[in-house]
Amino acid sequence: MENGSKKWGFRGNQNLGTASAITIRGVLNMLMENLNKDDPRPTIPLGHGDPSAFPCFRTTHLAEDAISDSVRSAKFNGYAPTVGVLPARRAIAEYLSTDLPQKLSPDDIYLTIGCTQAIEVILTVLARPNANILLPRPGFPFYEARAAYSHLEVRHFELLPEKGWEVDLEAVEALADENTVAIVVINPGNPCGNVFTYEHLKKIAETARKLGILVIADEVYDHLVFGNNPFVPMGVFGSIAPVITIVDCIKGFLNISSDPATFIQGAIPQILGKTKEDFFSKIVNILKEAAEICYDGINDIPCITCPSKPEGSMFVMVKLNVSLLEDITDDVDFCVKLAKEESVIVLPGVAVGLKNWLRVTFAIEPSSLADGLGRIKAFSERHGKKR
Amino acid sequence: MENGSKKWGFRGNQNLGTASAITIRGVLNMLMENLNKDDPRPTIPLGHGDPSAFPCFRTTHLAEDAISDSVRSAKFNGYAPTVGVLPARRAIAEYLSTDLPQKLSPDDIYLTIGCTQAIEVILTVLARPNANILLPRPGFPFYEARAAYSHLEVRHFELLPEKGWEVDLEAVEALADENTVAIVVINPGNPCGNVFTYEHLKKIAETARKLGILVIADEVYDHLVFGNNPFVPMGVFGSIAPVITIVDCIKGFLNISSDPATFIQGAIPQILGKTKEDFFSKIVNILKEAAEICYDGINDIPCITCPSKPEGSMFVMVKLNVSLLEDITDDVDFCVKLAKEESVIVLPGVAVGLKNWLRVTFAIEPSSLADGLGRIKAFSERHGKKR
Repeated sequence: MENGSKKWGFRGNQNLGTASAITIRGVLNMLMENLNKDDPRPTIPLGHGDPSAFPCFRTTHLAEDAISDSVRSAKFNGYAPTVGVLPARRAIAEYLSTDLPQKLSPDDIYLTIGCTQAIEVILTVLARPNANILLPRPGFPFYEARAAYSHLEVRHFELLPEKGWEVDLEAVEALADENTVAIVVINPGNPCGNVFTYEHLKKIAETARKLGILVIADEVYDHLVFGNNPFVPMGVFGSIAPVITIVDCIKGFLNISSDPATFIQGAIPQILGKTKEDFFSKIVNILKEAAEICYDGINDIPCITCPSKPEGSMFVMVKLNVSLLEDITDDVDFCVKLAKEESVIVLPGVAVGLKNWLRVTFAIEPSSLADGLGRIKAFSERHGKKR
Repeated sequence: MENGSKKWGFRGNQNLGTASAITIRGVLNMLMENLNKDDPRPTIPLGHGDPSAFPCFRTTHLAEDAISDSVRSAKFNGYAPTVGVLPARRAIAEYLSTDLPQKLSPDDIYLTIGCTQAIEVILTVLARPNANILLPRPGFPFYEARAAYSHLEVRHFELLPEKGWEVDLEAVEALADENTVAIVVINPGNPCGNVFTYEHLKKIAETARKLGILVIADEVYDHLVFGNNPFVPMGVFGSIAPVITIVDCIKGFLNISSDPATFIQGAIPQILGKTKEDFFSKIVNILKEAAEICYDGINDIPCITCPSKPEGSMFVMVKLNVSLLEDITDDVDFCVKLAKEESVIVLPGVAVGLKNWLRVTFAIEPSSLADGLGRIKAFSERHGKKR
């Protein structure tokens, strides 16, 4: 690329390659490119959690009306304050306070463009030279990507499959040092589908207090639970260890960040105030049914095993036994061939930190889920070692 | 803040203070805090460009319908591809192509959450050790903030008020070196309200080619012009110098960024395809009338002068002659006292890089604008030096 006498003086930022190499989006795009376009069957997407594409998981008309009302009111077309519009923050504070011993105020709330921006904000705000952060394995790789981008060192602690994916707290204590700033706790679990007990969450908070580190509670799936453990927000333990509500420079960073569309903010009070409980219970019941189908279907396939039935979120981790298969080398090979031969997308565990595991989403129409599991079974039998 | 035996190990990122210290939002928030709550008159906001708050600048019902239709269609509730949904990118490519000699394809288009994220993306992608970027003075300080955050050195070139705010191209050549990656060109001008001629834009492109640097064309106000110069997109000169459409790692960074709400993306084809020309001409006519009122009103106030009548965007730069005033030390002092005494918000020029200038927005209801200018006149007379 020359412009006569001189070369062009710009090129892409090389650091970004590292930061963006490990995203779920990237892995899923690769698998999509491996699909066989001649397969007449519908593709079954068990790779990412995006239930709203399916009619049975459609959001409420009430939420659609709230967005529509907000945009037509012409009250929410302009710039919002950095932290978000007050009615939205007030509605969220009230909504979250119902689960907490203390009452949140609107000033405790910062609106972000989904969880991705919330992660970006908190990791940016905590980054400083030599700092490190404790992340779960398996986990949600967006944390790793944003940490790499902010030059925040990542240290992984294990979630223990034999203990219902609880945090290995002894490992956490061994990993932390004077440069550790925070621990990330994802509950209900992505990708494991587990729900932590009150007692375990309290132990995590006590460990954080002992280590002097912040707890970043990722509760994006909060009330999406359908097993024995109820959802307990980490904020319940706010008196033991700090939970992210305020860090001084969040406002400063939001000043140089993009905002959620103002008319979406404007719709929040109506959505939170008016959505009936039966909408959520309907969704939770479908997910519970789907989790059963998924668990039973997986147990019916010899080369994969599920250490525990999912009780929350929309994911389950499944162990792949490669030694039972003829010509599959690892989880990525399994997923690439599965996409090609069966038009089923499943996320290789390596994308969430666990090699030779798979992350399966069950938040799709139950009939499609059963179809997808049937195809995985046929695939596994075809590739199984002959006795 | 102690937790027994040990201090908490986290604190806010100190770099962010520098990056976020110079935002328009920050300065405007400070002025708002200086308003006199006992003043019964409405506050006149001439400080930031947010016309949609005023009935005369209300967006089309068609755009509101498009958003509403998109959200109710349930087709745009899920995750979008990293680069944006195809129908939106196709509609935008077609829309932009009407002004260009070449035809853009959907692959040339990346959807971002407004201009702020577009600036974040391009500056992040261009950042590398020792790189510098050329920014206009006066300018839009979000560029300075994001450059500081990405450790990209900023070098300012002047816009020349005596030449209708054209770029000082000799200064640009003197500033650039082998580490210069790009030049930012804002046209129509924010904060100056000027519109560059075809010939001047061509010269900028030729200078960029000579220097081997990228042109970042900020055309957020594109067809908002109402003077003698028509709007010419920088893309017209794409064969002379590269204009931002593709940089390899944009996709990578978008993989670790937040997305525009999918249902907003879904509304774009309808908004671009169906909005009638008379909506835009109505808005441009109101702005033209407001620009006249603003220019005439300013010329009627002795201590401020306007070097040229605004011909585009929604801003004008006004020179403040402090020597004519009794007890005003500079532009910030002028704006703080104006807020306190007259409930009028005007942005001090220092926030856009020019000390002892003011940036005035005229994109408000013409009657409020006239009211605001009257208050500025009364304020100036009250603080004027007695002869």
